[in-house]
Amino acid sequence: MSDGQADLGVLGMGTMGANLALNFADNGAFTVALFNRTVAKAYGVRDDNPALAERLVPTDTIEQFISTLKSPRVVVLMVNAGQPVDEQMALVLPHLDKGDILIDAGNADFNDTVRRDAAVKDTGIHFVGMGVSGGEEGARHGPSIMVGGDEAVWERLKPLLEPISAKYDGTPCVDWLGTGGAGHFVKTIHNGIEYADMQMIAEIYGILRDGVGLKAGEMADIFADWNTRGLSSYLVEISAVTLAETDPETGKPMVDVIVDEAGQKGTGRWSVIEAQKLGIGATTLEAAVSARGISSRRSERAEAAKLFGAVATARAEFHADADGLKELEAALETAKLIAYAQGYATMAEASKEFGWNLPLGEIARIWRAGCIIRSRFLDDITQAYEAGGGEVVNLLLAPSFKTLVEEGQASLRRVVAKAVLAGLPVPALSAALAYFDDYRRARGTTNLTQAQRDLFGAHTFKRLDREGTFHHKWPAVG
Amino acid sequence: MSDGQADLGVLGMGTMGANLALNFADNGAFTVALFNRTVAKAYGVRDDNPALAERLVPTDTIEQFISTLKSPRVVVLMVNAGQPVDEQMALVLPHLDKGDILIDAGNADFNDTVRRDAAVKDTGIHFVGMGVSGGEEGARHGPSIMVGGDEAVWERLKPLLEPISAKYDGTPCVDWLGTGGAGHFVKTIHNGIEYADMQMIAEIYGILRDGVGLKAGEMADIFADWNTRGLSSYLVEISAVTLAETDPETGKPMVDVIVDEAGQKGTGRWSVIEAQKLGIGATTLEAAVSARGISSRRSERAEAAKLFGAVATARAEFHADADGLKELEAALETAKLIAYAQGYATMAEASKEFGWNLPLGEIARIWRAGCIIRSRFLDDITQAYEAGGGEVVNLLLAPSFKTLVEEGQASLRRVVAKAVLAGLPVPALSAALAYFDDYRRARGTTNLTQAQRDLFGAHTFKRLDREGTFHHKWPAVG
Repeated sequence: MSDGQADLGVLGMGTMGANLALNFADNGAFTVALFNRTVAKAYGVRDDNPALAERLVPTDTIEQFISTLKSPRVVVLMVNAGQPVDEQMALVLPHLDKGDILIDAGNADFNDTVRRDAAVKDTGIHFVGMGVSGGEEGARHGPSIMVGGDEAVWERLKPLLEPISAKYDGTPCVDWLGTGGAGHFVKTIHNGIEYADMQMIAEIYGILRDGVGLKAGEMADIFADWNTRGLSSYLVEISAVTLAETDPETGKPMVDVIVDEAGQKGTGRWSVIEAQKLGIGATTLEAAVSARGISSRRSERAEAAKLFGAVATARAEFHADADGLKELEAALETAKLIAYAQGYATMAEASKEFGWNLPLGEIARIWRAGCIIRSRFLDDITQAYEAGGGEVVNLLLAPSFKTLVEEGQASLRRVVAKAVLAGLPVPALSAALAYFDDYRRARGTTNLTQAQRDLFGAHTFKRLDREGTFHHKWPAVG
Repeated sequence: MSDGQADLGVLGMGTMGANLALNFADNGAFTVALFNRTVAKAYGVRDDNPALAERLVPTDTIEQFISTLKSPRVVVLMVNAGQPVDEQMALVLPHLDKGDILIDAGNADFNDTVRRDAAVKDTGIHFVGMGVSGGEEGARHGPSIMVGGDEAVWERLKPLLEPISAKYDGTPCVDWLGTGGAGHFVKTIHNGIEYADMQMIAEIYGILRDGVGLKAGEMADIFADWNTRGLSSYLVEISAVTLAETDPETGKPMVDVIVDEAGQKGTGRWSVIEAQKLGIGATTLEAAVSARGISSRRSERAEAAKLFGAVATARAEFHADADGLKELEAALETAKLIAYAQGYATMAEASKEFGWNLPLGEIARIWRAGCIIRSRFLDDITQAYEAGGGEVVNLLLAPSFKTLVEEGQASLRRVVAKAVLAGLPVPALSAALAYFDDYRRARGTTNLTQAQRDLFGAHTFKRLDREGTFHHKWPAVG
């Protein structure tokens, strides 16, 4: 293999980077230069994959890495978010030329992507923030890929990315979504939705475990059954798989030996921060991120349980008979739609705010396979956008979801009420329902809020009966 | 009045700035130099207040403003948050000398305060970020004041600020809380709690209006009654006052002619963004900020109401008899404690993160009068911290609140369940309850989340039965 023959280079041989490199070599039949700070890792990736070895080119120095690439070069960074990206960019950029493409394929706070894009702009090097979803398996065999940056660059990247992406009914789950930070923004919202999806599943699991008293294996069967209908999705499928799994050491169900402290890697947090900045109430996503925060305070929870574990609550009125399970299934499906509506509302607002013109239907389309939230339901969203000619004010208002919501909301309502009375926490499910009820109310209650704000801060208010902004002279208050 | 005789200067003669200047002149008997971009405004403030005129010194130029001040100088900026603060600082700073004090007394994103503090540091000029709460009336007659910056500076500011601050049982509601952005951070959380407080009141108002069918005047009486007991607070008091008010134009209750679209000025949003950055689930605050966002989408709500206004819900089981009102009162009181627990947990985490050593009990103490969330309840919080020797892991765990929570949670549970079944949105009340139920659960459900994360991302998990970090080889999934 002579110098300058690699189709692209991957920098960062962690799990995701190594798998992405293998994917390029395998499904794209591309020749891939490999580089890693610890050089041996790059050689390890080649040596562990003899079938692909001739298309994998480990390199020892950044100079060698760069000189191994065809010009104009394509370098894919896959390192941890934050400082490491800036460090690796500082390492690579001096060796790149005008027209080369540098891709950050890791998760990134889209504000960082905007900053990096601006910093590189004048050099003529193209910076691309690219979201890659699908975990380890996705990276290796076909992720969903959300591309940002200049549209012109997309034409060059398309032949590289389409072969390695997931396919849904044969069409590749990759597209260019908008300039600058658009790709990473969409990936961030994807992850926020993923948090919400996982949290709502965990809440239903909590109801089945603590409200009905089922064993892990019994719950596995329920999720497996749900996976055959409207809830059919990767996350429901792996709920069934993880619940069915036995710990080889103790013979207990795996989930029963795992500590209930969930980590987070920042993307969920970014999603709710950006939603807040945009003035969108993505409360279901927020509840999900916050629930992980509470879960991590395990010793405090133990103390609180001692104090309040025995507070008076009603007996849980949940049952695992056909009707009871149907109700839980419908509740989860409805809440899921509402969570997606919040995520989509956030993207719609960002699209306006940042001038991206995000193709929201297309985003649902490329999420249908490869990524963690892949599901049949995303195909319904794709169709809702197609029916709306690309324009949907809020997913809850899409005609195709009307029946689902009308029928499902009553189940969601009963499930939340029963959980609340029984003391079973359902933060995300109740946030979803509250959003729906608030959103479908023509006359809300913030008229009182406005009266108060006008009284104490002269913030003024609008009147129902005519245009304008008004201030009322309220009585003096102590 | 000769040059150099003013005790301090106030820059910015908007409502808050003018009232603060009058307060300094009135309650502090200080001589106050006034400056405003539109010069006439400063003269107007003096001319409109003849009784204080001899202590109010309007100035025409920034040079004159500065030369009117005693040295070392104290300049109080009171302009809109953001860019205007930077602009006015740029105007003032070149005229100040080492040892002078420049105070930003407006609301500020504490990250901006940290940045401005750092920018000024080398000049020897002291920059102080200071939170002032109490609206127009507070600024004029006695606000609650949260001071940040260098502790040494506090000794000099104390004699200026104590006379103008609110008093609770004679003690001034002002204190130094910590270095850098501590004052503005605490003010931000104060406002986040204020949002939550107002939203929960609005939710109870919604239940009384739409669930029971009461008229504004009837609700005014209820809030006025509640204001005599545990809920006694400024916000409950002004709920009664605003609900009792009649529109002079139409003769209808004022609240019934006001549009239900609530504005926000950024501090609520900042509070939940900072809470998220700190990994704290301040979900009640978040629900409140988000509810304002939803309220502002009035045309979408009207459309959603047409689509879903008639979805099947249960009849509202709320009653305005003694028992029914007692239940709502207890629910509101309990949810309020939980919201405050979230706000306090956010401050506790920030204190650790930024090395502030925030005096949390002292913060409750200075919030007891002057500010918008002033209440009897804050005295209970002060005492809880005193009883805990300044250390309270979470307000929910404070022994003095145990009875309130034990007795109140059942009411909160019933109110949320009934509202949920009746289709009345209670986003903040349900978020509060979900937090309580999640927090008091020794064994949560994120063990399933961790199993899923380990399956798709090899994120590893902890085991209940021994130390360490583990990865399981899960079955392959589609």
